[in-house]
Amino acid sequence: MAVNLDLRKLQDIVNENEFKKLYQNGLAYAEEIEKDSSIGFTELPETLEHVNKAKEIADKLPENVDTLLVLGIGGSALGAKMVRDAFQNNLTKKLIILDNVDPETIYSVASSMNPEKTVINVISKSGTTVEPISQFKFFFNLFEKELGEAETLKRIVITTDREKGVLRKLADEKGILSMEVPANVGGRFSVLTPVGIFPLQYCGIDTKSLVNGALNEKKEGADKSVKGAVLDYLFFNKGKNIKVMFIYSDNLYRFGEWYLQLFAESLGKRFDRDGNEVKVGATGVLAKGVTDQHSQVQLYKEGPEDKFFAFFKIKNKKDILIPDSLSEYKELSYLNGKTFSKLMDAECEGTMQALENDGKPLILYEIDELSIENMGRLIYLFELQTAICGYLYNINPFDQPGVEEGKIIAKRLLGYN
Amino acid sequence: MAVNLDLRKLQDIVNENEFKKLYQNGLAYAEEIEKDSSIGFTELPETLEHVNKAKEIADKLPENVDTLLVLGIGGSALGAKMVRDAFQNNLTKKLIILDNVDPETIYSVASSMNPEKTVINVISKSGTTVEPISQFKFFFNLFEKELGEAETLKRIVITTDREKGVLRKLADEKGILSMEVPANVGGRFSVLTPVGIFPLQYCGIDTKSLVNGALNEKKEGADKSVKGAVLDYLFFNKGKNIKVMFIYSDNLYRFGEWYLQLFAESLGKRFDRDGNEVKVGATGVLAKGVTDQHSQVQLYKEGPEDKFFAFFKIKNKKDILIPDSLSEYKELSYLNGKTFSKLMDAECEGTMQALENDGKPLILYEIDELSIENMGRLIYLFELQTAICGYLYNINPFDQPGVEEGKIIAKRLLGYN
Repeated sequence: MAVNLDLRKLQDIVNENEFKKLYQNGLAYAEEIEKDSSIGFTELPETLEHVNKAKEIADKLPENVDTLLVLGIGGSALGAKMVRDAFQNNLTKKLIILDNVDPETIYSVASSMNPEKTVINVISKSGTTVEPISQFKFFFNLFEKELGEAETLKRIVITTDREKGVLRKLADEKGILSMEVPANVGGRFSVLTPVGIFPLQYCGIDTKSLVNGALNEKKEGADKSVKGAVLDYLFFNKGKNIKVMFIYSDNLYRFGEWYLQLFAESLGKRFDRDGNEVKVGATGVLAKGVTDQHSQVQLYKEGPEDKFFAFFKIKNKKDILIPDSLSEYKELSYLNGKTFSKLMDAECEGTMQALENDGKPLILYEIDELSIENMGRLIYLFELQTAICGYLYNINPFDQPGVEEGKIIAKRLLGYN
Repeated sequence: MAVNLDLRKLQDIVNENEFKKLYQNGLAYAEEIEKDSSIGFTELPETLEHVNKAKEIADKLPENVDTLLVLGIGGSALGAKMVRDAFQNNLTKKLIILDNVDPETIYSVASSMNPEKTVINVISKSGTTVEPISQFKFFFNLFEKELGEAETLKRIVITTDREKGVLRKLADEKGILSMEVPANVGGRFSVLTPVGIFPLQYCGIDTKSLVNGALNEKKEGADKSVKGAVLDYLFFNKGKNIKVMFIYSDNLYRFGEWYLQLFAESLGKRFDRDGNEVKVGATGVLAKGVTDQHSQVQLYKEGPEDKFFAFFKIKNKKDILIPDSLSEYKELSYLNGKTFSKLMDAECEGTMQALENDGKPLILYEIDELSIENMGRLIYLFELQTAICGYLYNINPFDQPGVEEGKIIAKRLLGYN
């Protein structure tokens, strides 16, 4: 199996009957979610429509482009970032994803930019998000000054709603290339829409494999997603309000970032579907193996009993031998003949056992290799898991009412009414 | 003031008498810590010894070096990483910090390496840490094959204990350049020792300003550190087991990573000084403003009442105007005449107010500008705060018994006895 879920010693910690009952509920929810046509992310693995559309758009863009600048934030950025950083060696163009409005970063990106050889992809589902809009005004101005309006317009791709918002209007009136975010897919579930597919594919990532991985995972059934959702729900209810994602892979690390925004925004909710105040949602924490063994593990092992752990490891990694150098120092020799891969695996297992010895609940995801196909699998597995967990909580995992107030205050402070 | 701490509306949340009493205790602890000669980090701002030593070592290294490869992990890596990433424009050499044993990363670093123009700095206080030792064996071998042993030895700098460990032995017997980690400074408090000073200074960072900043902060007194420690202690005891560091600056972001390892390893403890089982320690979470407003803030605003927030903003940033481009679209015009700096500040304030409106406890650190001197201030401020907080908990903030068991199991799995 491409992604394996090992529940380790959880059977000693979790009540079997309680788990079974929740598992059955979770399976039913999975079916409900996958059948509900108002929920779009479950349909995305079934179609190559967005892959084909991305190719179509790419064919219309100028030749000799070596850089894609993505202007987007939150879900519109993290999906592409995760795949980009996992498969850096596959990139055929530089992929810059600007997901903040920090002037220091904008200045630094602008300073090293060659508009002639750059395409801008501005992404905002609503077409009104202040960060990509302000970035877009800035880079449009920069490009226009250097290339003139006509050449600038040729170097823009807009990803937004089919009908609504100023970006759609702009695309229509100025004849700018554009793609649509399906109305039934929220930003944080949008990596397999043009939001993620276009930037990745344009920069050389095999997005067909990505979509195909998601499809294969979907076909395998919801078992892993349901188990994960049940455990997320169960441990939160047992007072473990922190979920640690412990990722033993540099290249997979940003998958954790992507997942944690999905997890936080989907499950952190004040009211349930019946209007009762519930204030649910565990807080996700990202740790990198083996690095964070040297700091966070102190807290994980000895601190409060408030954590649930999900470990991630890649089974097949590059086999690099730790060479028999400086062999006259016998203190250095215990690693001779071992590979870095073995060392990393031993440290992962050592850390898991040390936590288990103290009764900490942990599960292990073992990914047979870090391929684009498996990344597609992880995307679907965890999107579905997050949605199921929302149903177990009886909350809506697809809205985000809590992010509005801060935006309104910020606009007021900027003098906008 | 260079770093200002604003307690915002905390007076409505925190009991005044309780706070005052703890504040007095905290002040006394600060004095005790600064006077205790067995605690070394408080002395580091007072000396330029390590800055001078770093220069002395640099003068003995080959010319034409363009890359420094640091092999270290945990506290031996995160301090230099934080400063490097905040001041990337100041670097005169490429500074690669390899703080994991992931074979994919090691392969990728090795593939792009030119040993002729590279210096290796291997850092391990004990001289036995498995990760830098295994990396060192690998890169020693790689360099030796290409340059021969004599030229390789010229390109190594060892940072380790004055007497103990195989790295010290190696330095002495092979005549390798070396520096000492003071015995009374633990890894996570070591950024102002040769552990952090040498790599940064060798790559062009003005470490004198860094040390000087720490000294200026120390001279200003412990007020901010004590307040922060009291709040960390108080909110944890009131059931807020999560501390969110919300950093409104791309360049300051890794300061959060550095701080969270210090925070976790120092304060996550099972037993107090009297041997009672206490299991204390909040879990730190890092958020980036404005980016994470689009995901985490949903959880922060609507989820459980289990969080305490520390916001960080830089007062003086680059002033880049959001230009009046695409002016025919009035929906895009509300940002005309605003700067990205103003936008970022408004979003920060909007987010803080939205959380405060729901009674969430938050404080704000305002840094007048992101200078090396201010980074030195932050280092001292938060090291002292962490130590004081440990004293309030009545635990030892300077040990880390919880990281040992995993290491022992890992070694056993590797067949080492």
